[in-house]
Amino acid sequence: MESETTRTEAFSDGVFAIAITLLILEVKVPRHMPEGKLWQALLEQWPSYLAFLTSFFTIGVMWINHHRLFTLIRRCDDALLFINLMLLLGVTWIPFPTALLAEYVGHPGAWIGAVVYSGSFFVIAIIFQVLWRYSTGRGRLLGDDYDRDMVGWITRQYTPGPFAYLATLIVGIFSATACLILNMLLAVFFALPPSIMRRK
Amino acid sequence: MESETTRTEAFSDGVFAIAITLLILEVKVPRHMPEGKLWQALLEQWPSYLAFLTSFFTIGVMWINHHRLFTLIRRCDDALLFINLMLLLGVTWIPFPTALLAEYVGHPGAWIGAVVYSGSFFVIAIIFQVLWRYSTGRGRLLGDDYDRDMVGWITRQYTPGPFAYLATLIVGIFSATACLILNMLLAVFFALPPSIMRRK
Amino acid sequence: MESETTRTEAFSDGVFAIAITLLILEVKVPRHMPEGKLWQALLEQWPSYLAFLTSFFTIGVMWINHHRLFTLIRRCDDALLFINLMLLLGVTWIPFPTALLAEYVGHPGAWIGAVVYSGSFFVIAIIFQVLWRYSTGRGRLLGDDYDRDMVGWITRQYTPGPFAYLATLIVGIFSATACLILNMLLAVFFALPPSIMRRK
Amino acid sequence: MESETTRTEAFSDGVFAIAITLLILEVKVPRHMPEGKLWQALLEQWPSYLAFLTSFFTIGVMWINHHRLFTLIRRCDDALLFINLMLLLGVTWIPFPTALLAEYVGHPGAWIGAVVYSGSFFVIAIIFQVLWRYSTGRGRLLGDDYDRDMVGWITRQYTPGPFAYLATLIVGIFSATACLILNMLLAVFFALPPSIMRRK
Repeated sequence: MESETTRTEAFSDGVFAIAITLLILEVKVPRHMPEGKLWQALLEQWPSYLAFLTSFFTIGVMWINHHRLFTLIRRCDDALLFINLMLLLGVTWIPFPTALLAEYVGHPGAWIGAVVYSGSFFVIAIIFQVLWRYSTGRGRLLGDDYDRDMVGWITRQYTPGPFAYLATLIVGIFSATACLILNMLLAVFFALPPSIMRRK
Repeated sequence: MESETTRTEAFSDGVFAIAITLLILEVKVPRHMPEGKLWQALLEQWPSYLAFLTSFFTIGVMWINHHRLFTLIRRCDDALLFINLMLLLGVTWIPFPTALLAEYVGHPGAWIGAVVYSGSFFVIAIIFQVLWRYSTGRGRLLGDDYDRDMVGWITRQYTPGPFAYLATLIVGIFSATACLILNMLLAVFFALPPSIMRRK
Repeated sequence: MESETTRTEAFSDGVFAIAITLLILEVKVPRHMPEGKLWQALLEQWPSYLAFLTSFFTIGVMWINHHRLFTLIRRCDDALLFINLMLLLGVTWIPFPTALLAEYVGHPGAWIGAVVYSGSFFVIAIIFQVLWRYSTGRGRLLGDDYDRDMVGWITRQYTPGPFAYLATLIVGIFSATACLILNMLLAVFFALPPSIMRRK
Repeated sequence: MESETTRTEAFSDGVFAIAITLLILEVKVPRHMPEGKLWQALLEQWPSYLAFLTSFFTIGVMWINHHRLFTLIRRCDDALLFINLMLLLGVTWIPFPTALLAEYVGHPGAWIGAVVYSGSFFVIAIIFQVLWRYSTGRGRLLGDDYDRDMVGWITRQYTPGPFAYLATLIVGIFSATACLILNMLLAVFFALPPSIMRRK
């Protein structure tokens, strides 16, 4: 059964929008602090802010990519619905590793949080590839007049994705903070529009 | 008063998207764990992950079905608005039995959680049938040129629904874990597109 | 500045959908109960379920009414945007009195919870009237060919609204449970479509 | 890559709608109060209500402005997507400073909460300007027949924004309550439609 992608996009937009907004619930207000210690308490929870920012940008950039893919994907079939649901599962899951990593940065278990965090993005990067390759394979779900260059550029941009997240996972074993910063940089990379790659 | 279904679908999409995303709030981060016990603590809360996954897929598949039904249902009347609201009540409710079951799997009260969990899906399966039978009865709210085969297949796919959930409820009295796994399999069954059933 | 109502409806749908779904967060899972007491603990928190149900139906019916009004309201001006924002403020607020009332039903402070609960709906009923009278006054924001009978019926249906909620407030001083049940019945009344009133 | 703004608006609507609705989660129900102290406990948490109201109106007015801008902005490019994401980051962040300020109003650390609160809005006001100036510069993303007067009025209305929020920050060092009230008044100012400014 094939249909238009409108409602799939609407449902996905909803899940992205909610997951990105729920992240803030994990940034906790320091309670019952005397005046002299409130600034310090706010500063000491910098891992929460950094994890919030990194996850915010990663989900935001995933949304930008989802948006970008669905300007090319014009039809929807049952397999795409299912792969998209797997992708949304990944997006919905992110607040958990975000909270876990924020809790343990600066403590001995930080590397465990980093492994779960980067591991989650590693899996999501693979799902993104599956979604893209399924939709574009033999032009399956693209419009009739799709932009072949654009599709090629996106494919090339996505290919290193899982490997890059695997790299941040390995870095995360040694430094959770470095892991977060690398993930932020990866978000910037995936935000780059194909048109910039064209100029290269 | 009859009208188009656009806004009903938008509101329903919102409720489905939020309910599915709120599920993650019930997966709690283990706090203040020493490094050596963090992996173990993460693994020990596997019932939370399993309940999260099962409910995620069940709500996701409900959304897919809702989407599928509303590609056939073309008009909206007040009774449909009301039945749809009952369905959304069921969807909104799910995070509660999910958290309940996750809390008690592996503890003596697990069967109670399983009964509430499967019982909730049993009621939702009935509401889905009512919605479908009302909309399709004498072609009431379908388009003029609706696909009779498709409507018949969906009707046949939905008929065993409540009985199947009743079966998982009975299994749940003996094993909450088996109950969760069976519910996951049921989600897969209801995700099957009618076009697959056609080929049978 | 006048514009179409599409985006206002989308934003409102979002707020309604989220507020109605957040209600479940106030239904708490009883933690660490021995098997023998779990059923009892689940049953003892019936005020939570009743408050959840009442607020769910009240918000749901508000959404149905919002939907009904905006099939008649065709244009949007700045004043309507503002009145609609006040209405959404009311909708967003509801999870608080719901949780408050659920906490105190069966305890001495219940009447306070009931007064805050019904008082909130009283204010919302007034805002609904302002929105409707502003939009319909001299046909201000209606379509050119609006259904005069329908507009008249809705006006007559809304007129007793604030008084009815005031009545539930007074009842609530004596019995919070009766207050909840009356609010549920009011939701049913406002769900009635004008076409039913026509037949009277 | 240029495209229409429909899906960007839908995603933004979702984030605005969720952030505005999550604010209520920070208004806590006083638990286990004897009857005689419940009214008092409800009244004593007035900072929570005031912060909720101020943030609600500020986010609501931001949404109205976003809506207003995107009736003029007709095309979307990658830079706009990015700036819009920064704006949504600001919106998503607001529940945190709201809860922080509500926690400390009336306590010695209140000025710290006020600085973080007004500081957040100061940054958001700057992002709003960047978004507007980027979109309108040389009519970059406007429709071909855009209303030059309207664009000019909005530019003039936005220019004092960051300075005004800086002023509330300075006031907040001395009185957090005054800071909240001034922020509420600023929301009213930014809600004013350009058409009112025209009449001046």
